[in-house]
Amino acid sequence: MKVSVIGATGYTGAELVKILLKHPQVEIETITSQSFANKKISEIYPSLITDLVCQELNINKIALSSSFIFTALPHRISMEIVGKLHSRGKKIIDLSADFRFIDPLIYEEWYGTPHQKKELLKKAIYGLPELYREKISRARLVANPGCYPTSSILALAPLVNNDLIKGNSIIIDAKSGVTGAGRALSLATHFPEVNENVRAYQVKGHRHTPEIEEQLGKLTTREIIITFVPHLVPINRGILCTCYAALKQKTDTKDLLKLYQDFYKEEPFVEILPQGRFPQTKEVLDSNRCRIGITVNERSGRAIIISAIDNLAKGAATQAVQNMNIMCGFEETMGLIQ
Amino acid sequence: MKVSVIGATGYTGAELVKILLKHPQVEIETITSQSFANKKISEIYPSLITDLVCQELNINKIALSSSFIFTALPHRISMEIVGKLHSRGKKIIDLSADFRFIDPLIYEEWYGTPHQKKELLKKAIYGLPELYREKISRARLVANPGCYPTSSILALAPLVNNDLIKGNSIIIDAKSGVTGAGRALSLATHFPEVNENVRAYQVKGHRHTPEIEEQLGKLTTREIIITFVPHLVPINRGILCTCYAALKQKTDTKDLLKLYQDFYKEEPFVEILPQGRFPQTKEVLDSNRCRIGITVNERSGRAIIISAIDNLAKGAATQAVQNMNIMCGFEETMGLIQ
Amino acid sequence: MKVSVIGATGYTGAELVKILLKHPQVEIETITSQSFANKKISEIYPSLITDLVCQELNINKIALSSSFIFTALPHRISMEIVGKLHSRGKKIIDLSADFRFIDPLIYEEWYGTPHQKKELLKKAIYGLPELYREKISRARLVANPGCYPTSSILALAPLVNNDLIKGNSIIIDAKSGVTGAGRALSLATHFPEVNENVRAYQVKGHRHTPEIEEQLGKLTTREIIITFVPHLVPINRGILCTCYAALKQKTDTKDLLKLYQDFYKEEPFVEILPQGRFPQTKEVLDSNRCRIGITVNERSGRAIIISAIDNLAKGAATQAVQNMNIMCGFEETMGLIQ
Amino acid sequence: MKVSVIGATGYTGAELVKILLKHPQVEIETITSQSFANKKISEIYPSLITDLVCQELNINKIALSSSFIFTALPHRISMEIVGKLHSRGKKIIDLSADFRFIDPLIYEEWYGTPHQKKELLKKAIYGLPELYREKISRARLVANPGCYPTSSILALAPLVNNDLIKGNSIIIDAKSGVTGAGRALSLATHFPEVNENVRAYQVKGHRHTPEIEEQLGKLTTREIIITFVPHLVPINRGILCTCYAALKQKTDTKDLLKLYQDFYKEEPFVEILPQGRFPQTKEVLDSNRCRIGITVNERSGRAIIISAIDNLAKGAATQAVQNMNIMCGFEETMGLIQ
Repeated sequence: MKVSVIGATGYTGAELVKILLKHPQVEIETITSQSFANKKISEIYPSLITDLVCQELNINKIALSSSFIFTALPHRISMEIVGKLHSRGKKIIDLSADFRFIDPLIYEEWYGTPHQKKELLKKAIYGLPELYREKISRARLVANPGCYPTSSILALAPLVNNDLIKGNSIIIDAKSGVTGAGRALSLATHFPEVNENVRAYQVKGHRHTPEIEEQLGKLTTREIIITFVPHLVPINRGILCTCYAALKQKTDTKDLLKLYQDFYKEEPFVEILPQGRFPQTKEVLDSNRCRIGITVNERSGRAIIISAIDNLAKGAATQAVQNMNIMCGFEETMGLIQ
Repeated sequence: MKVSVIGATGYTGAELVKILLKHPQVEIETITSQSFANKKISEIYPSLITDLVCQELNINKIALSSSFIFTALPHRISMEIVGKLHSRGKKIIDLSADFRFIDPLIYEEWYGTPHQKKELLKKAIYGLPELYREKISRARLVANPGCYPTSSILALAPLVNNDLIKGNSIIIDAKSGVTGAGRALSLATHFPEVNENVRAYQVKGHRHTPEIEEQLGKLTTREIIITFVPHLVPINRGILCTCYAALKQKTDTKDLLKLYQDFYKEEPFVEILPQGRFPQTKEVLDSNRCRIGITVNERSGRAIIISAIDNLAKGAATQAVQNMNIMCGFEETMGLIQ
Repeated sequence: MKVSVIGATGYTGAELVKILLKHPQVEIETITSQSFANKKISEIYPSLITDLVCQELNINKIALSSSFIFTALPHRISMEIVGKLHSRGKKIIDLSADFRFIDPLIYEEWYGTPHQKKELLKKAIYGLPELYREKISRARLVANPGCYPTSSILALAPLVNNDLIKGNSIIIDAKSGVTGAGRALSLATHFPEVNENVRAYQVKGHRHTPEIEEQLGKLTTREIIITFVPHLVPINRGILCTCYAALKQKTDTKDLLKLYQDFYKEEPFVEILPQGRFPQTKEVLDSNRCRIGITVNERSGRAIIISAIDNLAKGAATQAVQNMNIMCGFEETMGLIQ
Repeated sequence: MKVSVIGATGYTGAELVKILLKHPQVEIETITSQSFANKKISEIYPSLITDLVCQELNINKIALSSSFIFTALPHRISMEIVGKLHSRGKKIIDLSADFRFIDPLIYEEWYGTPHQKKELLKKAIYGLPELYREKISRARLVANPGCYPTSSILALAPLVNNDLIKGNSIIIDAKSGVTGAGRALSLATHFPEVNENVRAYQVKGHRHTPEIEEQLGKLTTREIIITFVPHLVPINRGILCTCYAALKQKTDTKDLLKLYQDFYKEEPFVEILPQGRFPQTKEVLDSNRCRIGITVNERSGRAIIISAIDNLAKGAATQAVQNMNIMCGFEETMGLIQ
């Protein structure tokens, strides 16, 4: 199958190229880059072993030559391009935030820009296979989840789905590596500002908050309101989400572990760790895995759920490939289990 | 004033030596080290500019020559030595956990060892100047607080003291640099295991939990139960505590900021940041400062309080010197403001 | 083919297991570990996805069940075990230093221990495929090169082989990540001692010096004396060798590049970078590649050759697999190109 | 004494402000910043405890109010401003490269811009106190040395001055922290590009090469040609220079140590380490010290000299203050020894 990657030279795009090069069922037809057109991607990412040359974006050409397209573009820029490709009948996975929301008003509020393709929002499927495998398999447009939402939703879905959480008690304290902020330069990601430092950011509201709330809300009948605080830690890759939730009724760790194991028992990429073990970011590096550790703090009646993913992998590129596998009828783990 | 440091070659002890060397009112009489007796401390810490030589511990000699003594020893080892020094009438600051608890049963439960000096527990003052300045000024034995408790208690004291927090809703998600684990070797602090990694540890219960609870409990009439999860991040020094607490009544950020500013208005080392700003660990590095940022998440009715300290400074050595200044009638900031 | 790994829980052993698990022609029969016998290796290295359990070493059992054995043990411990396995007719790759030297006296001088298996030294082939592919293909015992020697020898072989270097002018200034020091605990690899620090070590003589000299010496008729200074930098994996050598005659960068390109033109894992480009450690991470950049400093008449490898990969585990492929008649790149 | 800092918000300027705030003999009159005019510097550097507000540059005002001025500006921008201040009779320390060279042609060749103030080059003194203390004490304009030159020249001066080095055999392999590249954003200093990576840069020629050569050349009668290769390592602060030089005659380590100890015996900030010890960057962090370790590799007849400094301190800001102390007749170590 011929695939293209639009926006191949951001960290996510390049990771996607790396994974697709090893995928047995696909051939990369075109990669595009606005900043590095006509350069080999191996000049920009010397660890990539390929002769692929970045092209300027030519939607017609891509639509003609490719049957599957990944868009790894900044939000707002993505929606136009996705719209055109969709109207040509292409299968698309969009890695931006542009098609992640059902409600365009929420998008517009948090992303500060009007949504130009509202009609497509209804057709887009949220690409978290653990929740929407069936719909993804029939979708033509999949909105690949954000990195924080992937790790947060996987950590909390079993509890929310079983309506075990009190009121608005969910707190997600997330720690992320710096690639999550992308390759665009900013003082906040300048080496001496990040190294030997830890800080919270967007404490008053991060765009992934409504994404998590909308998705968790779909698992239950009531509105979900969370408190989400992201932190930047001096590592390249990895997200650790420490989630806290007050339990409606007395439950012990064993019960909760069983609930999680059952919920994810068919999942190839979600692992519930044995009692007493909690994941480190290092152990899911470069993999499509999400690992989850759970304990109940009985004194406070609160569950603590810790999930770890690689933000560029399960949080972006490998999850996109997992979605592609499902959309195309390939083995779901193809190209993802080494 | 002649002072001695017992246990000078751990990270805390060495930091204490560094600070004391610059203090205008003290002269270091003796430093001891079990592992490095008869070696210059500058051989072990080449950044220290001093000819001080580590001695074997001789309590008699130290009691005779020094009027003020710091003990920076592992818990359990400390209590015996402190006991002997105390009975000689010395002023002591103990940096271990041995004298931090009022209730010996709590100590024995969490530290897994019988307490040999229960009678001294009543005489020891918990050395957090922001809460106990008066008592510290009259104390002969001060138990220097733990690093996590220092940052956690300072972050939460104004809320607890004003009884603004609902039930057991306090959550402290703490991130610490690796010096907090000390200089003793362990796989958990071996460079390749920490670098490019983030993890939670002692999720089911960390020894600083009861210390925080006891101290916060003293500020109110009811029992305080917290949820405390520490994390290890790949930096040398620094603690960031992200604290969450459900508010009893509708309060906005401005009100809370005012409350905190009033609570700490006389404090030379606690700074409440302006609305919208939150501290980074880097900005309190090598200082006795604790910086605190606050916001109210109105959707969830929850306060988010973020505090940053340097775990070896305000979390250990410089706080000890602040306590010494108070105990000895020196200017409280002496040797601590550069 | 059934293979075993003796000493599977050091960093090198675990990396070897990771690679072998993906190799299409091998099945791992037994892994051994003294420290972690009867534990799953996935408990020690949670990123490894396998049910393999570490066994105590039983040479008989391994000799019966496996046709190919890797020994990833500390030097001195290795020689006995290799001896026994060799006498059972097994094919072995030894990753220690025990069989790297032709001259046992040099081994004994630098490793401070008598060599118990001198007769085997003559049969062992130094496992650098780029120099000894032919001999490796016929060997039963291969001594896998050290990490520094791999990157140093590959950087200098074309010059030495063509006798282009003046006298004893070779200088190798090497920078290594911390996994090169292994998983054994030491203050030198304790996180706070390495992080935010750079230092040289074993400046007066590192054990890899005679290994490099012996191998380079075999490429020429004269004795080679080098100056080698290793440095520890705060990264997990990677070696950068900056090599300096005074040229016998006026040569320009272009000529030298051509010489190197010709020398390595058939090599699947050595890449000579285009003029003006020099490798970074990051670009060879997790790969069996060695990348080399070259320039001639015409003012001083000196060549500067910079090589980068991953110390655990081309510097240890993947090079061992490359050697296995050659010894067993598999495609040389099998399991090594992703 | 009233001093001003022009360009106070780069890493060097801010470090200078930090040092000057603690200096007992100076009062900071004005600090300027083009990018952050009218902002408190404590907003840009929250670790600075001061109410100083950045001003737009007004040369007249500064010349009237300040008797001593530091310029911490990019090269080329500096020369104009220094020219104007000099003509007003001010004492100036320029931290750019604009006045470091005697020969304007060398400046123009390496910095790619014409020199507008050639007449001032003759008046400017190169601010390395260990070589030019006398001249500095009488100077009105001091050119503060580059960071690499400071550590390189101090490492090599005793050998060059005694004419002990063969031909062009000097090699300086330097490793620097990232603050050396300044606060301006670039992909090369974007966190994920630096972290977990080591690389050489400007291998074919770095601007500090001619600076080192000119200064070492002044210590001898012959032209000095060096080979200098800088490397970027993932730390914030610190330079380690590993210097290699072939010795003209057989010399042992002891002799060389004695030579160095004698050469620097009056120096408060240069320390020659005992035989067998070599400096780490960590041990000179935040200090004006340069530490040097030496060994002779007798097999190759080559001296290895390793020097460590803090690039922002002895490599920039504290060395500037040391120069100010000399120029103003203050105790040379004032404000620099904590």
